[in-house]
Amino acid sequence: MDEAGAERRTRRGGGGAARRAERTATRTEFARFITRNVPDFQILNAEALEIIEANAETLLAEIGVNFVDNPDALKLWKDAGADIDGERVRLPRGLARSLCATAPATYVQHARNSERNVEIGGRNLVLAPVYGPPFVRDLAGGRRYATIEDFRNFVKLGQMTKWLHHSGGTVCEPTDIAVNKRHLDMLHAHMTLSDKPYMGSVTLPERAADSVEMSRILFGPDFVDRNTVMTSLININSPLTFDSVMMGALEVYARAGQACIVSPFIVGGAMAPVTVAGTLTQVLAEVMAGVAYAQLVRPGAPVIAGAFVTSIDMNSGAPTFGTPEAAQITLGAGQLMRRLNLPYRSAGAFCGSKLPDAQAAYETANTLNIGLLSGVNFMLHACGWLEGGLVSSYEKYVMDADQLGILHRLAQGIDMSENGQAMDAIREVGPGGHFLGCAHTQANFKDAFWRSGILDYKPFETWDEEGARDTATLAAIRVERMLAEYQAPPIDPGTAEALADYVARKKAAVPDSFLT
Amino acid sequence: MDEAGAERRTRRGGGGAARRAERTATRTEFARFITRNVPDFQILNAEALEIIEANAETLLAEIGVNFVDNPDALKLWKDAGADIDGERVRLPRGLARSLCATAPATYVQHARNSERNVEIGGRNLVLAPVYGPPFVRDLAGGRRYATIEDFRNFVKLGQMTKWLHHSGGTVCEPTDIAVNKRHLDMLHAHMTLSDKPYMGSVTLPERAADSVEMSRILFGPDFVDRNTVMTSLININSPLTFDSVMMGALEVYARAGQACIVSPFIVGGAMAPVTVAGTLTQVLAEVMAGVAYAQLVRPGAPVIAGAFVTSIDMNSGAPTFGTPEAAQITLGAGQLMRRLNLPYRSAGAFCGSKLPDAQAAYETANTLNIGLLSGVNFMLHACGWLEGGLVSSYEKYVMDADQLGILHRLAQGIDMSENGQAMDAIREVGPGGHFLGCAHTQANFKDAFWRSGILDYKPFETWDEEGARDTATLAAIRVERMLAEYQAPPIDPGTAEALADYVARKKAAVPDSFLT
Repeated sequence: MDEAGAERRTRRGGGGAARRAERTATRTEFARFITRNVPDFQILNAEALEIIEANAETLLAEIGVNFVDNPDALKLWKDAGADIDGERVRLPRGLARSLCATAPATYVQHARNSERNVEIGGRNLVLAPVYGPPFVRDLAGGRRYATIEDFRNFVKLGQMTKWLHHSGGTVCEPTDIAVNKRHLDMLHAHMTLSDKPYMGSVTLPERAADSVEMSRILFGPDFVDRNTVMTSLININSPLTFDSVMMGALEVYARAGQACIVSPFIVGGAMAPVTVAGTLTQVLAEVMAGVAYAQLVRPGAPVIAGAFVTSIDMNSGAPTFGTPEAAQITLGAGQLMRRLNLPYRSAGAFCGSKLPDAQAAYETANTLNIGLLSGVNFMLHACGWLEGGLVSSYEKYVMDADQLGILHRLAQGIDMSENGQAMDAIREVGPGGHFLGCAHTQANFKDAFWRSGILDYKPFETWDEEGARDTATLAAIRVERMLAEYQAPPIDPGTAEALADYVARKKAAVPDSFLT
Repeated sequence: MDEAGAERRTRRGGGGAARRAERTATRTEFARFITRNVPDFQILNAEALEIIEANAETLLAEIGVNFVDNPDALKLWKDAGADIDGERVRLPRGLARSLCATAPATYVQHARNSERNVEIGGRNLVLAPVYGPPFVRDLAGGRRYATIEDFRNFVKLGQMTKWLHHSGGTVCEPTDIAVNKRHLDMLHAHMTLSDKPYMGSVTLPERAADSVEMSRILFGPDFVDRNTVMTSLININSPLTFDSVMMGALEVYARAGQACIVSPFIVGGAMAPVTVAGTLTQVLAEVMAGVAYAQLVRPGAPVIAGAFVTSIDMNSGAPTFGTPEAAQITLGAGQLMRRLNLPYRSAGAFCGSKLPDAQAAYETANTLNIGLLSGVNFMLHACGWLEGGLVSSYEKYVMDADQLGILHRLAQGIDMSENGQAMDAIREVGPGGHFLGCAHTQANFKDAFWRSGILDYKPFETWDEEGARDTATLAAIRVERMLAEYQAPPIDPGTAEALADYVARKKAAVPDSFLT
């Protein structure tokens, strides 16, 4: 069997130009999204789960949540049976959970290349790259503000990365483009430079509407009306606050049948209590309120229940990553979200380090491993995240992406077929023998072990002669090669033209703003 | 509660000199061994476990194991009901498992400072440092052959490391001391420079006997007769072979009531089949035969069931670490060993990298996390391992040791007390508020979050001004400070003299040999 169900396939596209392009394109490897064949880790027992669930209902009923500057939301809540007091919404026990029941347990996000479609929820894990950093870093240029060229480079790397199932969203902030226009260029890059699924803009409701319009051009309007083609990131303003910008974007997407991740963004000790159980309670209450609201806007709208939680360094006030508290929250939240029957988003290649060094790798590996075992269904930031999310790192992107191959393999579980049991091999070799030459090894060695595409496995002397290079140096070479070898996936010329026209027209319609 | 039950305590020793030394000694932090309050991860279901167990019995009955150059062992086996054919020992189904039943499920290994005693087995996890490398590496001096000075330095670091419960054994090979005498200097270093538990020599049966004799001096002969004061590492020559040197050492220790780790050392694809289930089958068969043999030598002798398993890079032939196959084996072997009711040894700070860089940290963190969730009871190589075990790294020692704090905290599970639930905090802060100043945060912040002692949490500008140092550079500073601050734990002067005499006498009795 091929590794993690990965298959070599040629790129596909529509139309004659696409077919011509296909014949000359290089073959790109990609892996199907992960379907776990291993159980989830249960850090909370039944009693603990029930306590947290009861406490979350108490929070929603007694304290409630604020929906800010959003009279339409207050009306929806009132009609659903909530108590409204100014902007405060108090939810009678059980209301939020019952509203959540109309959200689908799994949904398919379509890609323009249907082989790249992903199914989000259930036993699946879909991996998407880093989201949001205003800076980039590479070995040659150091740390600097990100540009649209960086953005396009990261989209290209994502398209070429075998273990990444999703092109993501704001892979870095293109700070050289006006704030009120950059969403157009970002979407255009995802739509044209990648054929994997992508995320829409959430920074204003009208930018969400642009995302839907551009998707209608790319997929055809009927297709978008009937199918989910975007999953976008809606952050809750913890504690317990839903602002009108994020909710406005959510409303646009939910009405269009497009998916949202409803996710608290919590630095523990600042936006939530310093304890794990307290944070889990608040996360659950916030997610239930947010998902319930999406269902009020449109019952059945696809949503992902999210938890982005870090702890805080009480000395410096900095967020910290790869910590045991973050691991406990990620594991516990997974159990709670599964009991809501919702897809779950958490974890990522999180680190606080300024460099793609050992700190970055410890923190990242701690988080990735726990993410897999937590039953995460959608992992944003799965590669490239550096410096607490301030920096998209070129080198770390490919280093992390390489590690994602491990998650694919580990999730397969243990092959218990007769070939997997290998009794004939042990019989053939016997005490004191050697397995390298035996028939079973010869038949299986090619796919037997996961192999890194970037880490160093050479003998010391060879490695030393070649310059004693560290991981970041090897990664920089890989980045350069990938960008040199990149070829755009074919796209129908009429579609490409229509997308470019839409972007040009929208950009020409208003003056640049670098503020909002 | 203090982190992981760690407590600040003054060092203790016996006698007036010890008490005087105590009054002037600096206070050293140390953590109690881990007792897990989280479940183990179950990667194998009941059916898979039964298949592997049945296959292991088939291997022992049909193929058997070789006990090489060991007629006394063959006699013990024959008397126990095994079929003997030359050096081949075939065990009727059920024999090995029934012999294993006399091994204790848990045992206490005593330290000369009784506060450092460890209980091995059950829900506990005891952490010990790297074992065996002939080289050391540090940032200043690069890679070089290890010396006795390096050895003593690593023992000192172990004594000062809060999260390490055990002083280990061959923390590096002191290659400047004759092969036939270095065990004396190594034991002497552990006994005098540390007051944590230690491992004995296994390179020849008479060196195991020296280890017992020196322990009788340190603890008193009666104490050693009645208690376990050493846990030593007995490797099986996989596949299915038990050599007379290792078995000779095991016999010495078992007869003296001292503990042995009975552990296959497997590079998958070379010493075992390329499949995970096949390797688990062989590991189980080998461990059952080895543990059963220890019980034949002395029923009730304390043993740990071990599994040291890596995979092989089929391109270079190098062992690889932190791989998904190694993770699956570590998890599966844990389940199998628990069903034998034996303490389990596996995992460690494994990596193939030549440098303490990102590769080293990814591979190490992958292994440490899985080790915790596998239910490992004794983790050798928990810090300092570099380059596939060829190198003890000063910097990686303190980097890894810092990560071990995460395992302590994660294993505590989630505090579900009223304080942990933090409902009052959420009520006090309310929607849109901030938790930093609330009463609950003030009462809990000191112990709320695990905090690295070495990773960088500073703002970018501060970090940049201070030289933009990577993790290894920060670690080198920490190593230097720890060695400068080290103070030897007090020891009774008469005991110290008797130990020094024993070493001097044994070293003078034979000429140096640098061969064996």
